[in-house]
Amino acid sequence: MILGFLRSKGSLPAVFALGLSWAGPALAEAPRGDWDVTSFTLDNGMQVVVIPDHRAPIVTHMVWYKVGSADEMPGKSGIAHFFEHLMFKGTTNHKAGEFGQKVAEIGGSENAFTTYDYTAYHQTVTPGALEAMMGFEADRMRNLVLTDAVIGPERDVILEERRSRIENNPGALLNEEVDATLFQNQPYRTPVIGWMHEIEKLNRLDATAFYDRYYAPNNAILIVAGDVEPENVKVLAEKTYGQVARGPDLPPRVRPTEPEQNTKRTVELTDERVSVPSFSKAWVVPSYQTAEAGEAEALDLLSEILGGGNRSRLYQALVVKDGIASSAGAFFEGTMVDDTSFTVYGAPRGEAGLQQVESAVDVEIRRIIKDGVTSDELEKAKDRFVRSMIFARDNQASMANIYGSTLATGGTVDDIKQWPDRIRAVSADQIKAVAAKYLNPDHSVAGYLLPAKSVEK
Amino acid sequence: MILGFLRSKGSLPAVFALGLSWAGPALAEAPRGDWDVTSFTLDNGMQVVVIPDHRAPIVTHMVWYKVGSADEMPGKSGIAHFFEHLMFKGTTNHKAGEFGQKVAEIGGSENAFTTYDYTAYHQTVTPGALEAMMGFEADRMRNLVLTDAVIGPERDVILEERRSRIENNPGALLNEEVDATLFQNQPYRTPVIGWMHEIEKLNRLDATAFYDRYYAPNNAILIVAGDVEPENVKVLAEKTYGQVARGPDLPPRVRPTEPEQNTKRTVELTDERVSVPSFSKAWVVPSYQTAEAGEAEALDLLSEILGGGNRSRLYQALVVKDGIASSAGAFFEGTMVDDTSFTVYGAPRGEAGLQQVESAVDVEIRRIIKDGVTSDELEKAKDRFVRSMIFARDNQASMANIYGSTLATGGTVDDIKQWPDRIRAVSADQIKAVAAKYLNPDHSVAGYLLPAKSVEK
Repeated sequence: MILGFLRSKGSLPAVFALGLSWAGPALAEAPRGDWDVTSFTLDNGMQVVVIPDHRAPIVTHMVWYKVGSADEMPGKSGIAHFFEHLMFKGTTNHKAGEFGQKVAEIGGSENAFTTYDYTAYHQTVTPGALEAMMGFEADRMRNLVLTDAVIGPERDVILEERRSRIENNPGALLNEEVDATLFQNQPYRTPVIGWMHEIEKLNRLDATAFYDRYYAPNNAILIVAGDVEPENVKVLAEKTYGQVARGPDLPPRVRPTEPEQNTKRTVELTDERVSVPSFSKAWVVPSYQTAEAGEAEALDLLSEILGGGNRSRLYQALVVKDGIASSAGAFFEGTMVDDTSFTVYGAPRGEAGLQQVESAVDVEIRRIIKDGVTSDELEKAKDRFVRSMIFARDNQASMANIYGSTLATGGTVDDIKQWPDRIRAVSADQIKAVAAKYLNPDHSVAGYLLPAKSVEK
Repeated sequence: MILGFLRSKGSLPAVFALGLSWAGPALAEAPRGDWDVTSFTLDNGMQVVVIPDHRAPIVTHMVWYKVGSADEMPGKSGIAHFFEHLMFKGTTNHKAGEFGQKVAEIGGSENAFTTYDYTAYHQTVTPGALEAMMGFEADRMRNLVLTDAVIGPERDVILEERRSRIENNPGALLNEEVDATLFQNQPYRTPVIGWMHEIEKLNRLDATAFYDRYYAPNNAILIVAGDVEPENVKVLAEKTYGQVARGPDLPPRVRPTEPEQNTKRTVELTDERVSVPSFSKAWVVPSYQTAEAGEAEALDLLSEILGGGNRSRLYQALVVKDGIASSAGAFFEGTMVDDTSFTVYGAPRGEAGLQQVESAVDVEIRRIIKDGVTSDELEKAKDRFVRSMIFARDNQASMANIYGSTLATGGTVDDIKQWPDRIRAVSADQIKAVAAKYLNPDHSVAGYLLPAKSVEK
């Protein structure tokens, strides 16, 4: 039920975890009337976004806290995700499980996830149940009962979660060490789920301190999408969340940033559980929050042209034309508070070796750095983005997710509205420029996942 | 004048910087009368160690603060070293330069250094000047004048220091990224001097907060070695340091520790300023403070047998016998608060390539893991340690340094006294065991320094 979202590849990105297809932080140019988004702030500082969608009698209710694993204190890794689990425990008003039972009774669904930058809780229910959802959610914002008897067993659950999802998965283990090698100073170096030896020590005091600092209306965003009207949502929000006292004023989320990278780094994991070798290569690049104007949009389009699916250069060259790879692609995660990563990857097929695949990927990157992309490729990539946005717009939870993730990472409603225009404004020269500026093959971090019996890399 | 000690190889270890030769945290079995060490604590919590040495009318006066770069807040790297510089500025009682001028006038010398775990200040003067030194040192413990006019220009000095010592030195740049790749969670990952972009932002508030938290008698150790008597030192200490108010009670120095390492990692720096390639390979291993009984002593002896000078296995095999390396060796830095590193290194000679040197180093490590060391080697290594301790004992500043560094990293006077016996008790099996346990060639971090035109590694 509870999904702890891990950022590394191989895990599901938050949007995808919700069953959505979406490639950027915003929606396409929706006819105003269809998605007329309303935003306001309660007296206690809680931001509210209402996205009316009357096609079906369903409502998606989400609360996003502006806290994720990258906000954790050194040595306390995993507390953000641990706390997400604790939010499903009892409060002074409701026994553990009561909230979930209510959702199930009315045929709704619920979930939660933690990332580097935010923690979100959501339910999809009938409109008539919205007030109850808000009541439960507002209740657990401040009234959790955090005793050792609650925390101890849940820590065991998390340790088991880490064992099954990370320790038993060589690819996940490799990704953790690649991330920690890529980010030498930023907190994205630490896995969202936390290091095993630090999770083991998380206790009631850590949980209480975290709760008191970060779980408050003035550090939260309420997103309601669906068959509702803003006025009604406002009334209900004031009646529920509005009754929760404002929490401490938090300082701006200024975190350590990366020093200049002067080296080429590799991280190699050899494991007998690996049957097919694979590699990834990553760089630290700006996010939508840290980029100079246009660069994040260009990186989004670059990742699409270079490695976003079956039409991409990497897939066409390595998988289709040369037949040396069973998979090849690229991804960029732009909706982040701090500098983020741009990753390419591939796995060999047949007689081909990992080195051959990596070289072929490098060739494609160098081609873009040298010759840029064609206007045809660029237009098609923009079109694919627009299509993915249309799919997103067609899904209520997806819309809620776009608003939540953007706002929770420091973006605004206007950023979302203007994003399609900013994507359309990207030129081929800008794509070439960001490739040349950020994807230096000599200053990269490569990860190799190798079978135990591999002789040649 | 001011020496910011950087832990990475290529910089001078603290002891060596003082012109000493010493291989461990303690002295040999000195006749009690010669080095009858007295230790006591002032009412304000300042620990005092007196090491009488009447061979010459000289006294070494040192104050060690139990704070180093590993105690810095994330994002504030470099503040410990920066503060060391600021300690040479004016106080409410003395203009900047007055202290140093006094030392110079009486023909003394002074210095200071910052490491991961401590910051130390020392003067060597005639016994008659001891009281004055103590007065100046006690004064700057609390009375520094920290204005923007003082801090701004000194930050420029530090930025220039970083430029000349790190940015202009490819080996130093590589070492920084190797350390940050080796330590994925511990603060030893961050360079003592700080990351350039973080030093640039250090300001008066950072300096004041650091000063108020860490510079206090209850976080300091006074070491006086030389032509003095404990009773006199006590009187003078009470008259000077004893007048300084106790500072805040600091929590134990519990820092994040490393997760399990599952990968083999490499860091490669290619630079046209490099003429001769070289490599290093490092592992995270326990320090004297974190090791199980006997393991740190065994690691000390292992580093000596494997790579401690011209008689070592690496030197004999690679430099003397095969002639493939111009240098080869190993080092272990055991006097640290947290887990530390064990490093081997080598540089090729003639036609030999870096890979050939690295393979030959690996062969020697695997030989010890498989066959252990001989009792003859072990006894000789122990003898060399004893000799190095005798040299250390013969140097007053060296003795002061041994006590200071041990006490400032959590050791005791008894640890120092018992250390020679613990070294003697190490068996050949223990050496083999720590090599097998910690020097796993498949889970190491290698650094390669390469000339720009190198074709073959």
